[in-house]
Amino acid sequence: MFERHEFQVRTERNGVLNITEKVVEKINDSEIKNGFCLVFSRHTTAGIIVNENEKGLVEDMESFLEKLAPEDKKYMHNRGPDKNGHAHLRNILTGSGQTLPVEKGSLVSGTWQNIFLVEGDSPRTRNIDVYLIGEK
Amino acid sequence: MFERHEFQVRTERNGVLNITEKVVEKINDSEIKNGFCLVFSRHTTAGIIVNENEKGLVEDMESFLEKLAPEDKKYMHNRGPDKNGHAHLRNILTGSGQTLPVEKGSLVSGTWQNIFLVEGDSPRTRNIDVYLIGEK
Amino acid sequence: MFERHEFQVRTERNGVLNITEKVVEKINDSEIKNGFCLVFSRHTTAGIIVNENEKGLVEDMESFLEKLAPEDKKYMHNRGPDKNGHAHLRNILTGSGQTLPVEKGSLVSGTWQNIFLVEGDSPRTRNIDVYLIGEK
Repeated sequence: MFERHEFQVRTERNGVLNITEKVVEKINDSEIKNGFCLVFSRHTTAGIIVNENEKGLVEDMESFLEKLAPEDKKYMHNRGPDKNGHAHLRNILTGSGQTLPVEKGSLVSGTWQNIFLVEGDSPRTRNIDVYLIGEK
Repeated sequence: MFERHEFQVRTERNGVLNITEKVVEKINDSEIKNGFCLVFSRHTTAGIIVNENEKGLVEDMESFLEKLAPEDKKYMHNRGPDKNGHAHLRNILTGSGQTLPVEKGSLVSGTWQNIFLVEGDSPRTRNIDVYLIGEK
Repeated sequence: MFERHEFQVRTERNGVLNITEKVVEKINDSEIKNGFCLVFSRHTTAGIIVNENEKGLVEDMESFLEKLAPEDKKYMHNRGPDKNGHAHLRNILTGSGQTLPVEKGSLVSGTWQNIFLVEGDSPRTRNIDVYLIGEK
């Protein structure tokens, strides 16, 4: 079986935004009980990661990405209309999607694992897809 | 259903090389209409990423990888015959493969999403595998 | 078909630890002959990568992660009881899991590809899950 679900996130700032609840909702709505779930961003300036949802850590993650790919650096890409070179580079680090296990109708995740959208080019309305493949 | 496809890329230089067209061709040839596609490099010095195919950005991505893992730095690995430590480290960042959704017989991807081979140890002939799993 | 396997790794130090043999054992035990395998860490301070198992390179990979996210840096997250901010940041780079192809009952991997647990918060007992989806 294969299913596609989708939700939207309105991002008001660049950073690491928790989307776990919305992903879990889609998995819980699914008829697929055992299989793989692909949380996928169709954007090249917004990626998906799995990490802990702790306030200080979210700040650390944002500083980390800013340090590795600073927003105000001169990028060749920024000669064009879009000033978002930093966001594209951060997507190399995060990836566009994460594959996660689903078992007995639920997302399998460790105690501290949350799913985050890493927004690099806000404000935007982001489409997040949740694909499931597996068995009833 | 499960399918394996494969194609080769001759790389003449290190960098970020667009392979989208070849991946799409394999997906279009496939009998699998809905499912997951794994674009996979069987190499530890060449990874796979998803990003925008814009000339300036490609240069930015190459500079970014060179800055994080410089080619001429002294690596322990380079004591041996292979002088490609930088390429192995870049593979940590990019990953060896990317899982992408397939729906109604086509790759699902955003307007700007392209698939790139990140070559770190050219010139080489690289084998890129495209695995599909799903339903007709 | 869907299967879940699991094994444990006792980590005595932070670093890049080869788990290929244990993953291969689970794949070989599986009834699934063709499909996808997800090697997944349910931990936010230990990730999974694919790379070459060469002694010097393992040291290079460890130095690389230490340089990008140093263990003794001041992290907001470290105000709390856990002094593992560096390990969380390394997980952004490595990812929590890797999806790999399985064909004819075996892991498909290049000559040099091994699977590693990247431990950032040892000593711990880590649960590594191996999920398989595919056909007999």
